[in-house]
Amino acid sequence: MTWVPVPDGSDFPIENLPYGMFTTGDREPSLGVAVGQQVVDVSALSRAGAFPDVADGVLATLDRLMAAGRPVWSAVRRELTTLLTDEAARPRVEPAMVPQADVTMLLPFAVGDYVDFYSSIEHATNIGRLFRPDAEPLTPNWRHLPIGYHGRAGTVVVSGTSIARPAGQRRGADGGPPVFGPSMRLDIEAEVGFVVGTPSPLGQPVPTAAAKEHVFGLVLVNDWSARDIQAWEYQPLGPFLGKSFATTISPWVVPLAALAGARVPAPVQDPQPLPYLRCAGDWGLDLRIEVEIGGGVVSRPPFAGMYWTISQQLAHATVNGAALRTGDLFASGTVSGPDRHQRGSLIELSWGGTEPVRLADGSTRTFLEDGDSVTLRARTGRGPRLGFGECTGKITPSGP
Amino acid sequence: MTWVPVPDGSDFPIENLPYGMFTTGDREPSLGVAVGQQVVDVSALSRAGAFPDVADGVLATLDRLMAAGRPVWSAVRRELTTLLTDEAARPRVEPAMVPQADVTMLLPFAVGDYVDFYSSIEHATNIGRLFRPDAEPLTPNWRHLPIGYHGRAGTVVVSGTSIARPAGQRRGADGGPPVFGPSMRLDIEAEVGFVVGTPSPLGQPVPTAAAKEHVFGLVLVNDWSARDIQAWEYQPLGPFLGKSFATTISPWVVPLAALAGARVPAPVQDPQPLPYLRCAGDWGLDLRIEVEIGGGVVSRPPFAGMYWTISQQLAHATVNGAALRTGDLFASGTVSGPDRHQRGSLIELSWGGTEPVRLADGSTRTFLEDGDSVTLRARTGRGPRLGFGECTGKITPSGP
Repeated sequence: MTWVPVPDGSDFPIENLPYGMFTTGDREPSLGVAVGQQVVDVSALSRAGAFPDVADGVLATLDRLMAAGRPVWSAVRRELTTLLTDEAARPRVEPAMVPQADVTMLLPFAVGDYVDFYSSIEHATNIGRLFRPDAEPLTPNWRHLPIGYHGRAGTVVVSGTSIARPAGQRRGADGGPPVFGPSMRLDIEAEVGFVVGTPSPLGQPVPTAAAKEHVFGLVLVNDWSARDIQAWEYQPLGPFLGKSFATTISPWVVPLAALAGARVPAPVQDPQPLPYLRCAGDWGLDLRIEVEIGGGVVSRPPFAGMYWTISQQLAHATVNGAALRTGDLFASGTVSGPDRHQRGSLIELSWGGTEPVRLADGSTRTFLEDGDSVTLRARTGRGPRLGFGECTGKITPSGP
Repeated sequence: MTWVPVPDGSDFPIENLPYGMFTTGDREPSLGVAVGQQVVDVSALSRAGAFPDVADGVLATLDRLMAAGRPVWSAVRRELTTLLTDEAARPRVEPAMVPQADVTMLLPFAVGDYVDFYSSIEHATNIGRLFRPDAEPLTPNWRHLPIGYHGRAGTVVVSGTSIARPAGQRRGADGGPPVFGPSMRLDIEAEVGFVVGTPSPLGQPVPTAAAKEHVFGLVLVNDWSARDIQAWEYQPLGPFLGKSFATTISPWVVPLAALAGARVPAPVQDPQPLPYLRCAGDWGLDLRIEVEIGGGVVSRPPFAGMYWTISQQLAHATVNGAALRTGDLFASGTVSGPDRHQRGSLIELSWGGTEPVRLADGSTRTFLEDGDSVTLRARTGRGPRLGFGECTGKITPSGP
C-alpha cells in the first residue's frame, strides 16, 4: 500500500510505476515516475542518495536507465516500490514530488530505429481487402513471419504535439497524373510499442527466450497515416511519406515487469511458425485500448488478440544479425479486433470512407478533419489495473 | 598548390578535403581530413587555435561540424585550404598529420534516419523485370516521385567491417512452406548517399532550392541485400530483413562543396514532375563508380544518369513536413547504367542468377560467396579529379 493518494481508477497505482522525462518551467529535464496524480523526480532522489547501489548518472535520463540492463531496472523498481510504500521514506520522497498537472512531459527516450509491424490478422485482412480488392487479403508470407518495416525515428513525437496535416502526392483520377495537396484521408493507427533497453551486438540474433532481457517497457503509439499518399507511393518498397510526417507516443513507458499480471496465451498460430519464432511462456498481453475522437470513444481494440507477439517480433527483427540499440522502438501495427467497434483505424472503421463513423457530438467522420483531437488510452484487462496515460494529438491545417 | 605530397591519381587532392573520424591506438576519436596519403587531425589543430573563428568543440566530431551549418562548413574548408597551401603554416600543421596507413577509420557520423531511394530508372526497370516478371517493370508512380523507404540506421557500418551472411526465411519450393537458413542470394547495391548537416523543423518542407543549405556531403554506400529473404518478405510493406543486417559506408564524407566541378544536368524527366520537385541548376553529378569483387572490377555504374537528384530526393522526403536531423543519411538506390557492365548489383549483372559473372581469377559468381571481398570506389568524371577512398566489406560465414 502506497502512502501516495491514488484515486480510484487511476492509470498509475503503485504496481505500475511508469517512467517518463519531464520538466517544470525552465528546469533541466528529469527522469520521473508516475504515481497517482504525482510525478516522482527520480533524478532528484538519486542525486540525494536514495539509490546508493545505482551508479552515478544512471537515473539522470530514461536513456541511461534503459541502457543499464535488467538487473538495474529491477533494483530501481524495487527501491521505488519501497520508497513509495514505506511511510518512513515519505519525508525524503515528498519534496521530490510534483503534481502531474504542473509538469511538461517530454519525449521519454531518444528513439534509435523505429520499426512498425503489421501483427493483427484482422487489421492486415481489412487493409488487404481495402488496398488490394482483387487479391487475397493476406499475402502468402503473413502467417509465416511478423511483417514489418522501418519508419522514421526522427519524427516520433510525444503525446500532445500538434500534427500538421501532411501534403503530398495522391493518385490522379482515372489514371491521370497525380495530384498534389493536403492529405484528404488522414488517419490514425492505434498501436502498442515496445522499447529496447539492453542493446545487442551486430551479428547476434536475440532468441525469443531472451526478449525479457532486452525489452524495457511499452508505450502507446499512434502511427498517423495519410492513406491517399500511402496508397499512391507504397508499391513496391512500402510506406514512406504516408507515415513519416509524425508518430505520437505516450509520455509514460510502462515497464514490462509491471505487466506480468496481464500476460495471457497468444492466439494459436496456424501453421506453426519456424523454430526461431517459437516461444515458451505467455507473451500475449491483455491490454484494452480505447480510441477517442472528438471527445467520445469510437473503438476499443483488444491487444490480447495480436497474432504475433513481442518476443516473436524481436526474434524476427534480429534473426538476420541486425543489432539492437537502446531506444529502438518496435510498434505492433494497428490493433484491430474481429468486431467492427474494435478496429484501430478510421480506414477500417469507415470501410475505406464508405461508412461514416458517428462521433459523440453527432457529427460524422470518414477521415480526420482539421481541429480533431485523437486520444489513445489503454488499461490492463487482468492483474493489477494499470494504464498508460494518454497518447493524444490534435490535427492542425496543412502548411508550416 | 598544397605543400602535402599528393601522388598522381590520388582520391584526395587539395580540392577534395573529405572529412572522417579516426583513431590511432587508444586515443580519443578525432575529426580528420584526408590529403594525399595523410590525415590531418582537425580536432588537434582546432585545440591548438588554428580556427579562431570557430566555436570551441565544433571540430571535436564531424557530427558537431555538420550541425554547425553551411557558413561554418565554408569557413573551415577555406581555412583548411589555406593551412595546407601556405608553406608558412606547415610547421604548425605537420605535427597534426598522421599517415592514413597508421589510423583506424570509424563510422564518420552518428546516423539519424537512413532512407534508401530507388532512383536509377535502369535499376528499377531491371529489378521490376526480375521480381515481377508478369507486370510492367516500373510501377505507375515511378516517374512521378523518387520512391524510397526507411532502412535500419543502427546497422550502418564503416568500410572494413566484416559482413556475416544473414540467415532468414526464404520462399519454399512449389508454394510449400518457407525455408530457414543462410541467405543463398547475398548481393550488393552500389550507391551514393548524402548526409544532412543542417536540420529542419517538423512541419517545414525543404524546397529543392534549399538543398545546399542542408546537404553536408556525400559517401559511398553498399546496401548489402539478401535477395531471397527480400523476395519472400517484401510484400506488402517493403524490404526489411533482406536489408537490415548491414549497410556499409565509406569512411570519408566528401563535402558537397568539393563536387561543384562535377555537376552536370540531370537527365530530362518525362513527364515533368510536380512543381515541388522542379529544380534550378545542375544537380546531376558525374561520379564514376567502380565495383570490385574478388580483386577485379565487375561493373562501372555511372551516377550522372540517375533519374532523381539529391535536391529532389530531399524535397520529396520533407514535403509532408518530416523533420531532418543532423546525420540523416539518404542513399540513392542502386546505381545502374543502361549497359550490362554498368549494373550496380549482382542480381542485375547475373540476371537473377542465370548468367554468371566472371571474376578476375577466372571463377564465376551469381551471388556472393563466403570470403568474397567487395570494394566500391568512385571518382569525379569532370572538374578536379577526386574520389571517396574505398567502401569495402568481406563476407564471413553465417552465424555469430
